[in-house]
Amino acid sequence: MAERVAGPEIERLVQLLARLPGLGPRSARRAVLHLIRKREELLAPLADAMRVAQERIVVCPVCGNIDTSDPCTICRDPRRDPSILVVVETVSDLWALERAGLLNARYHVLGGVLSPLDGVGPEDLAIPALVERLRGGEVREIVLAVNATVDGQTTAHYLADVLFPFGVKVTRLAHGVPVGGELDYLDEGTLAAALERRTVF
Amino acid sequence: MAERVAGPEIERLVQLLARLPGLGPRSARRAVLHLIRKREELLAPLADAMRVAQERIVVCPVCGNIDTSDPCTICRDPRRDPSILVVVETVSDLWALERAGLLNARYHVLGGVLSPLDGVGPEDLAIPALVERLRGGEVREIVLAVNATVDGQTTAHYLADVLFPFGVKVTRLAHGVPVGGELDYLDEGTLAAALERRTVF
Ligand SMILES: [Zn+2]
Ligand SMILES: [Zn+2]
Repeated sequence: MAERVAGPEIERLVQLLARLPGLGPRSARRAVLHLIRKREELLAPLADAMRVAQERIVVCPVCGNIDTSDPCTICRDPRRDPSILVVVETVSDLWALERAGLLNARYHVLGGVLSPLDGVGPEDLAIPALVERLRGGEVREIVLAVNATVDGQTTAHYLADVLFPFGVKVTRLAHGVPVGGELDYLDEGTLAAALERRTVF
Repeated sequence: MAERVAGPEIERLVQLLARLPGLGPRSARRAVLHLIRKREELLAPLADAMRVAQERIVVCPVCGNIDTSDPCTICRDPRRDPSILVVVETVSDLWALERAGLLNARYHVLGGVLSPLDGVGPEDLAIPALVERLRGGEVREIVLAVNATVDGQTTAHYLADVLFPFGVKVTRLAHGVPVGGELDYLDEGTLAAALERRTVF
């Protein structure tokens, strides 16, 4: 959109929306027009929801989940089995597993995977915090629910080595997760099969 | 995302974003995580930009464009040729033509097309306002830049009939717009060819 078409406020909204994953400049413009047409039903509530999110969302200091309570809803839930800890790369993966509704465990978000080429080492991930959580003695099994990518599997092997001295059972998702696939894109059936047949590392 | 995964504020943000064209529930969740990771650089500015848009955006009472000034930037621009009026279906189409930067004219947004099957008649579009604009006597050419769809062409024929008594030249975009195509998806070269070879209706 040329500068002269509309006010700078509209152009700014288009540019900000275009930075969301899944939206480019063209779809951002369509989204802005849609928002303006639905000013009361959508634009106003969305502006409010973003302000609320900005003010209230916290990263859970225990597990790394994103929530509006501290610790997060999952960490506070007394019905969760504290003996199983599911290690995931990202909050997206945590949400994907929760949507499938298969687990009654707690989580630990690594915040990425080891990637020597990109300069990501153990100290860049939440690995020290994971080791710290084991000192409580409650955890008896750690499920390494990392992506089936090269970096994900490298990270799983590294974690298995680091966790070995603690004497906890370390498991990983069964083959069933397609090679190279990302958890966040799998259907619930595939996730169920992978969890059902999870193997000892 | 199950209710228990995260706070209702996050779920609400996901649900609102999922209502934008181009985003579904999955991409809305990814967008929310992206927003939260970029809280200061993206979430806060976007919440602000939406609030500003909500407060300031107006539909131009002259042409139907969306802007933050009333009348809109285009209608206020003294360098625009007041003798050519380009009739478009939607603000998206207006913006597409402006991005191509080919015209120095003014616009008139119909707000849709005639569609008897959907119950859209002339009184549902900005056709009375278009006729009103002709009474000023400045307009000498009306370019019917409607989509090359059946309803778009029906609307063009209807407008040509309505405008005939006013003695203005009524033109339409040359073939060059693909049959069934929508202006908003065309590249600038196609738009340029269609404008260059526009024909008398
Ligand atoms: Zn937590
Ligand atoms: Zn205007």
